[in-house]
Amino acid sequence: MPKRLGILTGGGDCPGLNAVIRAATKTANSHGYEMIGFLDGYTGVVEGRYIKLDPPAISGLLHRGGTILGTNNRSNPFYFPIKENGEVTYRDMSDKAVARLEQMGIEVLLVVGGDGTLAGARDFKAKGARVIGIPKTIDNDLAATDQTFGFDTAVRTATEALDKLHTTAESHHRVMVLELMGRYTGWIALYSGLAGGADVILIPEIPWRIEGVLKKIEARRAEGKPFSIVVVAEGAKSPEGELVVQRQVEGSVERVRLGGIGQLVGKLIEEKSGIETRVTVLGHIQRGGSPSSYDRVLATRFGVAAAELAVQGFHGVMVCLQGNAITHVSLEEAVGKPRTIPLDHQLLTTARAIGISFGE
Amino acid sequence: MPKRLGILTGGGDCPGLNAVIRAATKTANSHGYEMIGFLDGYTGVVEGRYIKLDPPAISGLLHRGGTILGTNNRSNPFYFPIKENGEVTYRDMSDKAVARLEQMGIEVLLVVGGDGTLAGARDFKAKGARVIGIPKTIDNDLAATDQTFGFDTAVRTATEALDKLHTTAESHHRVMVLELMGRYTGWIALYSGLAGGADVILIPEIPWRIEGVLKKIEARRAEGKPFSIVVVAEGAKSPEGELVVQRQVEGSVERVRLGGIGQLVGKLIEEKSGIETRVTVLGHIQRGGSPSSYDRVLATRFGVAAAELAVQGFHGVMVCLQGNAITHVSLEEAVGKPRTIPLDHQLLTTARAIGISFGE
Amino acid sequence: MPKRLGILTGGGDCPGLNAVIRAATKTANSHGYEMIGFLDGYTGVVEGRYIKLDPPAISGLLHRGGTILGTNNRSNPFYFPIKENGEVTYRDMSDKAVARLEQMGIEVLLVVGGDGTLAGARDFKAKGARVIGIPKTIDNDLAATDQTFGFDTAVRTATEALDKLHTTAESHHRVMVLELMGRYTGWIALYSGLAGGADVILIPEIPWRIEGVLKKIEARRAEGKPFSIVVVAEGAKSPEGELVVQRQVEGSVERVRLGGIGQLVGKLIEEKSGIETRVTVLGHIQRGGSPSSYDRVLATRFGVAAAELAVQGFHGVMVCLQGNAITHVSLEEAVGKPRTIPLDHQLLTTARAIGISFGE
Amino acid sequence: MPKRLGILTGGGDCPGLNAVIRAATKTANSHGYEMIGFLDGYTGVVEGRYIKLDPPAISGLLHRGGTILGTNNRSNPFYFPIKENGEVTYRDMSDKAVARLEQMGIEVLLVVGGDGTLAGARDFKAKGARVIGIPKTIDNDLAATDQTFGFDTAVRTATEALDKLHTTAESHHRVMVLELMGRYTGWIALYSGLAGGADVILIPEIPWRIEGVLKKIEARRAEGKPFSIVVVAEGAKSPEGELVVQRQVEGSVERVRLGGIGQLVGKLIEEKSGIETRVTVLGHIQRGGSPSSYDRVLATRFGVAAAELAVQGFHGVMVCLQGNAITHVSLEEAVGKPRTIPLDHQLLTTARAIGISFGE
Repeated sequence: MPKRLGILTGGGDCPGLNAVIRAATKTANSHGYEMIGFLDGYTGVVEGRYIKLDPPAISGLLHRGGTILGTNNRSNPFYFPIKENGEVTYRDMSDKAVARLEQMGIEVLLVVGGDGTLAGARDFKAKGARVIGIPKTIDNDLAATDQTFGFDTAVRTATEALDKLHTTAESHHRVMVLELMGRYTGWIALYSGLAGGADVILIPEIPWRIEGVLKKIEARRAEGKPFSIVVVAEGAKSPEGELVVQRQVEGSVERVRLGGIGQLVGKLIEEKSGIETRVTVLGHIQRGGSPSSYDRVLATRFGVAAAELAVQGFHGVMVCLQGNAITHVSLEEAVGKPRTIPLDHQLLTTARAIGISFGE
Repeated sequence: MPKRLGILTGGGDCPGLNAVIRAATKTANSHGYEMIGFLDGYTGVVEGRYIKLDPPAISGLLHRGGTILGTNNRSNPFYFPIKENGEVTYRDMSDKAVARLEQMGIEVLLVVGGDGTLAGARDFKAKGARVIGIPKTIDNDLAATDQTFGFDTAVRTATEALDKLHTTAESHHRVMVLELMGRYTGWIALYSGLAGGADVILIPEIPWRIEGVLKKIEARRAEGKPFSIVVVAEGAKSPEGELVVQRQVEGSVERVRLGGIGQLVGKLIEEKSGIETRVTVLGHIQRGGSPSSYDRVLATRFGVAAAELAVQGFHGVMVCLQGNAITHVSLEEAVGKPRTIPLDHQLLTTARAIGISFGE
Repeated sequence: MPKRLGILTGGGDCPGLNAVIRAATKTANSHGYEMIGFLDGYTGVVEGRYIKLDPPAISGLLHRGGTILGTNNRSNPFYFPIKENGEVTYRDMSDKAVARLEQMGIEVLLVVGGDGTLAGARDFKAKGARVIGIPKTIDNDLAATDQTFGFDTAVRTATEALDKLHTTAESHHRVMVLELMGRYTGWIALYSGLAGGADVILIPEIPWRIEGVLKKIEARRAEGKPFSIVVVAEGAKSPEGELVVQRQVEGSVERVRLGGIGQLVGKLIEEKSGIETRVTVLGHIQRGGSPSSYDRVLATRFGVAAAELAVQGFHGVMVCLQGNAITHVSLEEAVGKPRTIPLDHQLLTTARAIGISFGE
Repeated sequence: MPKRLGILTGGGDCPGLNAVIRAATKTANSHGYEMIGFLDGYTGVVEGRYIKLDPPAISGLLHRGGTILGTNNRSNPFYFPIKENGEVTYRDMSDKAVARLEQMGIEVLLVVGGDGTLAGARDFKAKGARVIGIPKTIDNDLAATDQTFGFDTAVRTATEALDKLHTTAESHHRVMVLELMGRYTGWIALYSGLAGGADVILIPEIPWRIEGVLKKIEARRAEGKPFSIVVVAEGAKSPEGELVVQRQVEGSVERVRLGGIGQLVGKLIEEKSGIETRVTVLGHIQRGGSPSSYDRVLATRFGVAAAELAVQGFHGVMVCLQGNAITHVSLEEAVGKPRTIPLDHQLLTTARAIGISFGE
């Protein structure tokens, strides 16, 4: 049996996954290792579904969005859904998964994923499996790495949307609200708001009030600019939000999710300022598309670094970017440490210096 | 007083408006005419707000989205909103508008707009004003011209969104629903669905049923493709739609608009197929952005043709594209003739030949 | 043996070839036909190299540039290069090619190519083979079709380059020369020059003199615009060109081809106007990249139409676009009729109206 | 007289200059300072040509390439060209320039430029002028800052070109050579080569031989990949280069510049491998275009930081990026320290791990 490494991609889609797979496979092959790609996250390990990643399989992958291995947001070998007789029950299948890796002669399993998927890798490690994590999230919210691939592409997509909304806002003297991804942190909203010329940016880290938003919009109107651009991270919560929701839909919280926070902010602005307001929810478009040149390079570096470590016999770590260098930390250190925007972050100061409001 | 033409832009925003303004102004200037740009559609004519479009004013305009003249969706000189003592009343200000054109020495007014704005131009003409229409709509739904500028750019934007959703759909084995503009016609949905590899396209012209949609999704799943792309024009109505809405929100129709038809289709697919489904509403992004090369050329041709006609003493017509040539029709012929997709259109046959379902 | 169609792609690369292959295959399959893809143009037919185009083979093709079948600029079965003992001799291999189609049960061969490749198809037809042509050229220079796929994408690429050169020209007060493809016709240069705001456009159809070019550049300088954009089709010849070349390189014509006409024009402008001038040769970038939405739709229409005709038993024709409809003409009519820009073409008038110079 | 800052942009064009101008002006204005923009680099200071940068002047600047202030590659106040009687003489005009800043009440002059322009700022400082430098170069070759704005955009543009060449190379079984900017360093070539899937990257830092290039191309051919992508930085020199040039053009070194190193490499590959080879020189397209989201944010941060320092009374420094923070170094430290690629840089190791050849 040839020497073998394995790789899987878990969690939400993210531009650059294919570039990681390509780089790790090329590196492994150059050391005489086979690379096995497990399908649909951990599910492929549990169920024994995989493909061999040979040169034809990875040809043309560098610039392609998505992942040829498939992914699965909810694939957890420790709480694995089993369908029997039309019912789903959950079982711990981690022993089976670890055993399969041994049987197949997988020396090290490369696990590409966000915090949830990496937590799985850490728990695999605790059971004696040899794993190396590769961080992936468009939200850029892992504390152990300065940046994750996918983030730059998501920001680019959001910025392009803002550029398009800008001319329309100006021509129509309207307020344009753009809701972006970011359930727990506002990195995408902050970066793309800065890059796309937003007037107001609402993020989970900074409590906002609709009066704060209106103050900026009114100040612009007073300066002869009857249009404004408002960027809202999907996780930008507000006590006012709930109130308004209750008034609007008679106590039903469930229904408002249809529209999301962007819709709410848009409705409030229009009601209170009298300025026509339009809302766009960019949604999963932020997860797709060909990765940016930055993300392709970062993903390639991560893939090479992880495979090199594996070939050299290291494991139990996650590769990461620190400054300009790829290095690694232990999986235990890497997991469970979200990176939100510190309130004294230089980017916030920068944004405030050019007049951007955070709705305070 | 120098010889003068005037120009205004009305209706919804549309990539290429600035290219029209630039081309018409350059052409007018080359014949020794001044070009006056009225602000915010007809409002600028009624209220006497305008700018002189000299060479610096039009510099760098060709590739810019939006309109430097501003626009106004609801500006109608025959039913013009007047604010007095905090109340809005509506009056016929068309006499005043026509008189102003005379006083200012505007030989011909170029009116760039969609069907509503052009109807205003026709009614101006009936009062003796000299006007020339220039057709504009991203929806491509004017019968009197083979194509309008803005459409190609909107299709490009929608296609780019589909390209991004495609990789994510495939990686996650999900259904992705993309709601596009098109209240009365499905041209944008049909073109971008063809260009972006949609599996299902729902348009106002073809009644659809959710069973029709599911049939295609299930057929793909049976072929080993557990993901699908569904494009929905915002005006794609369904008798089922209403029903479901009532069941969902207890009879309240108003609230469902929050989510729109795309949300409805997504909810139905997820419920009935069990496949995870995500919905994106592209919204006003389709109206913005730098015009495509095609739209820049078409807008330039329209602007030149309209100004040339005006300088030569023609008026009362709308310029249009027929085959590969710019020509013109009377405003009376041009207005009020929407162009929907004929049910025997070759593009529909083409779409069906490659297996695209229209949800029938 | 199942019913079979064949397809090959010949001539220079062109965005949309894969979209044709995909559409033709889907259509053929839906009628129960197998589709055989011959590799590297006619070479694959002569040498018996081909692949079966089944659903996995065409998955994900719609938006990809290039051709999965490969192509060959010089593949001519009537004058086919044979390597023997290190020497290349040319033989007529057309009988062998036609015989192979028969043996393989190919009912109709779809030939996607430009004028050279289509001439081969016509000559095959004369030998009794059943062929259908699909026109392809980024130059848009086939008389028998209103437009070819690939042209819109090439114009988009050239226009994006012009947009980038524009800001740099303006910031540096420079002349920027962009050499574009177009050996015999200036369609790409004319369209992208109009779309990209060129000041001067030099094309094969209109003889130009450097004095004509300088006149425009000087006129702009006099108006306070010390920068200009000059677009040059690679086939824009000039009697002056030769003269200058001889002075520069002492009679050697061969060497100047290194630089091409763009370099020559740039050198002349800089010498004679004293304005710093920079030259860019866009080259094969114009042939690559993901096809535009327009080209994807047109390529799909051509692919469907050709396969439908073949399945219905038609052959000996080339599909084409006339107005908004796909139709077909005989191969004999289609071949050998280049479409250059008529000197009274409306686009030339339009360009002149906004002050574009053709260097006359 | 109001409190005043000044700003100028010098050296080659670079995406993000306008974003710096906008951010610095907004910041200055928010502190009650006027911002004066000098035109065409130092020339505007010497000659007293400038504009006031008020809010309308900077509206819409964020996403625009180029610089509204103009620039001048050769503007040096210490060696300033004076035209008299048709002759150009050079004089030291630095006293006059410094005096003008005093007269105009410019508290601090912000100088945006590359190494040459910043050297001028350092020399101004030595004469007692109050200046703050802002680093700018698409080449990313200043040692004192981890990154400069413009670089990410240039890499993006180069990567898009590589993506386009890739499909064409593959379809035609050709070698595609892309010559990129980088006279003294290969950062653009290395990054975009990694991001665009190059097989060979030739940079000034690593001596290459044509045999090294051919080895990679032949190895690919042996693996069934008869196409290759070769990226060449314009400053990638070779002893062989000269030789070949002499053989080719009879000793004339001057003429080869017409074609550049890319042409030379292409010619050598075609001659020695027999594979058809095409060369593209991307040229000034790399300096133009709307800045990437990354560059917009970095340029904004630099502009804000410089203006904040100036308002607080600091000067004599250059702002820079270190890790994730904007900070500053003295102008003396900043100038004259080029940043080339260290031969043990991690990116080189990464590139080699995935099989990229540097032509050694």
